[in-house]
Amino acid sequence: MTRKLHLNAFLMGVGHHEAAWRHPRTEPARLTDVRHYQELARIAERGKLDSVFLADGVALHGNVRHNALGGLEPLTLLSALAAVTDHIGLIATVSTTYNEPFHVARKFASLDHISGGRAGWNIVTSAGEAEARNFGLERPAHADRYARATEFLEVTRKLWDSWEDDAIVGDRVGGHYADTGKIHAIEHAGEHFAVRGPLNTARSPQGHPLLVQAGSSEAGKEFAARHAEAVFTAQQTLAEGQEFYADLKRRLAAHGRRADELLVLPGISPIIGSTEREALRLEKELEDLIIPAYGLAQLSTMTGIELTEDALDRPLPDVSVETEGAQSRRKLVVDLARREGLTVRQLLGRLAGGRGHRVVAGTPEQIADQLQEWFLNEAADGFNIMPPILPGGLSDFVDYVVPELQVRGLFRYEYEARTLRGNYGLERPASRYAAPREVAVAR
Amino acid sequence: MTRKLHLNAFLMGVGHHEAAWRHPRTEPARLTDVRHYQELARIAERGKLDSVFLADGVALHGNVRHNALGGLEPLTLLSALAAVTDHIGLIATVSTTYNEPFHVARKFASLDHISGGRAGWNIVTSAGEAEARNFGLERPAHADRYARATEFLEVTRKLWDSWEDDAIVGDRVGGHYADTGKIHAIEHAGEHFAVRGPLNTARSPQGHPLLVQAGSSEAGKEFAARHAEAVFTAQQTLAEGQEFYADLKRRLAAHGRRADELLVLPGISPIIGSTEREALRLEKELEDLIIPAYGLAQLSTMTGIELTEDALDRPLPDVSVETEGAQSRRKLVVDLARREGLTVRQLLGRLAGGRGHRVVAGTPEQIADQLQEWFLNEAADGFNIMPPILPGGLSDFVDYVVPELQVRGLFRYEYEARTLRGNYGLERPASRYAAPREVAVAR
Repeated sequence: MTRKLHLNAFLMGVGHHEAAWRHPRTEPARLTDVRHYQELARIAERGKLDSVFLADGVALHGNVRHNALGGLEPLTLLSALAAVTDHIGLIATVSTTYNEPFHVARKFASLDHISGGRAGWNIVTSAGEAEARNFGLERPAHADRYARATEFLEVTRKLWDSWEDDAIVGDRVGGHYADTGKIHAIEHAGEHFAVRGPLNTARSPQGHPLLVQAGSSEAGKEFAARHAEAVFTAQQTLAEGQEFYADLKRRLAAHGRRADELLVLPGISPIIGSTEREALRLEKELEDLIIPAYGLAQLSTMTGIELTEDALDRPLPDVSVETEGAQSRRKLVVDLARREGLTVRQLLGRLAGGRGHRVVAGTPEQIADQLQEWFLNEAADGFNIMPPILPGGLSDFVDYVVPELQVRGLFRYEYEARTLRGNYGLERPASRYAAPREVAVAR
Repeated sequence: MTRKLHLNAFLMGVGHHEAAWRHPRTEPARLTDVRHYQELARIAERGKLDSVFLADGVALHGNVRHNALGGLEPLTLLSALAAVTDHIGLIATVSTTYNEPFHVARKFASLDHISGGRAGWNIVTSAGEAEARNFGLERPAHADRYARATEFLEVTRKLWDSWEDDAIVGDRVGGHYADTGKIHAIEHAGEHFAVRGPLNTARSPQGHPLLVQAGSSEAGKEFAARHAEAVFTAQQTLAEGQEFYADLKRRLAAHGRRADELLVLPGISPIIGSTEREALRLEKELEDLIIPAYGLAQLSTMTGIELTEDALDRPLPDVSVETEGAQSRRKLVVDLARREGLTVRQLLGRLAGGRGHRVVAGTPEQIADQLQEWFLNEAADGFNIMPPILPGGLSDFVDYVVPELQVRGLFRYEYEARTLRGNYGLERPASRYAAPREVAVAR
């Protein structure tokens, strides 16, 4: 079978461009309207995309004076999308820093049941001070967050395994519902968590939800190599994309994993026109709607440099790009400005579309060329599609770019499987508690 | 307008009777099937019921060898029910003991948006040791749990108020999305929580979800009088129901609340037949399917008395019914056994149907008589309906008992409102942060 690429639709309010809410093709009042997201999920499913994905943070990030913020919590929302779709994968961001593994394991197991095996978890660790302060805490150190995340994931995996697949007997006549020998207390006792288990939700169709990760720091990459099955990443150039891809794939062996057990999905915001000129016009329309004060505040947060409107037409001030690892995005932004000799205003224009992710304006063929180049040159196993405006940018992608990818033999015409793991070509994990028994039988 | 009663359908797996999963009219494999719950919600909506409700605990309770346990997490499930219904209220149980107010406030605000104003929260405090051990904790003291719950609720209320109703300006031309003067940091700093806020979800249709409570201990009743808008309660006799009703309503004034600001909804498990004989036959069928070992374990947990099969045909051993307040259900059970002189086996039969809630077998008219008697004699503002088997017991109630209540003028023919609060006849709370401004204008 020819290798096919995988496509995830990254859903964000009325679009990824920070000025999307001001563009005539969006309706910002739909930010909290479930029908908006249901429409997006249906469009993605019509295009045979693997999954939709919702980012999240547990604080109000960004200046709501100048952007449409304050939307819905992802897990709650994804259940409502599951109800109106049949095939599309449903990936929610949930932080390991201010949560309990029992709750998170249970919610993802529930979503996996509700969706018939389409749940995915984007694991994040909540770096920001604003988030910490909503939970009575100061900002935790970067290393601590990943140590907690690793143990958190270990606990959730045990809980998902705590009911073996064949634990339910269902003998109504004999009055024997479940084989309690196949439902296990996990008795986890670690540095961060003590959890007895078992989970109080039976094992779900996928066993574990698809595990996704998006941190590109050293600690983030190690976490991904150990645990993640798909990685969302921001890479600006083919060379950077190739380097990241090779780096991540190389790390897998140390954890006993094959290269195909983790998919690398760089982000891309496609600005699509039926002609190149039309695409550039849409890009310009969005650029003209940018509010510099909003972008400056975002850039200050991202780089740690205080910037005012005086700085707009000068180059980005010199800053160290040695980071503590928490802010790999900072390095990307500073590198971008230096490489292309951008003024702050020009940099804002470049960041407004994708917050550091690649923005490509062009015809469906040109967009497909870009995806093909990265996919065939070991920079990507697929892409995280970030439409500048929603739903229009997603329906344009589905209606014009997807068919182009299909005729080139790069993308599916029909779903291969009913589960998210199945469509991503990943295995269903066995319960760790069942394994010894199976080995014994094999002997 | 004549006073109408309110009806909530308490959904529990394939039925409230502990042997429901063994009865030929149920399908226990549907326990984790979202379509089962969607069907139940649609049946309840067809009957114009106010709401459906899901209980919850964060541990595997009861012996899964002998009962169909291990279902879905309520909040995740309710979003999927919202997607296929238009009017029915959606009430989820969430504990204040092992959660963070920011997460809970956000999920309910999201569910309220997703459902168009139909979210309700049954506030529980997680008494059990099994739950504590899934969160690295010993069982907390009863008083502590309620102190935490009170502060937890205070924080969630502030967060729900943190966006005023008119905070969103939506001026696309001027680039002004929200009036940041109407989005408030809550700056909560208390004994249990420190939360800065604001919430990162805009104010929802109901402002706050409907607040429900079900504890009947002294601390529970005080909590309800202060915070709850609906109370689920287990009362066996009309006299007990009247006493509880009067007690709770009397407590409201001390908190500056009117008697009609809190609805009392006793639980009732109606075993319905088209003749009395048919109803009694169904009751007997279920009784014959009881597994004594299961009921004994439940009874031991409920009363704190270790019971074995030897004890089945003897009276319940003498125990103190002075409780620490945590176990008002214990007193109810012991009183029931004493009052009616029941053996342990007989008591198990009485508890199997509703775990201490009232069980009434009869024709639709007889069931309606019972509801009418309590409703007209100040023992109830409505009822928490606990069908012995699902979906059959709920569709029987909707198809035969509801029309009887309607012709008696006791129940609605059509929904009065689009929101859960509206149908329960309760007000929409104003944002506490908006109030001073409005007062100033009024002057």
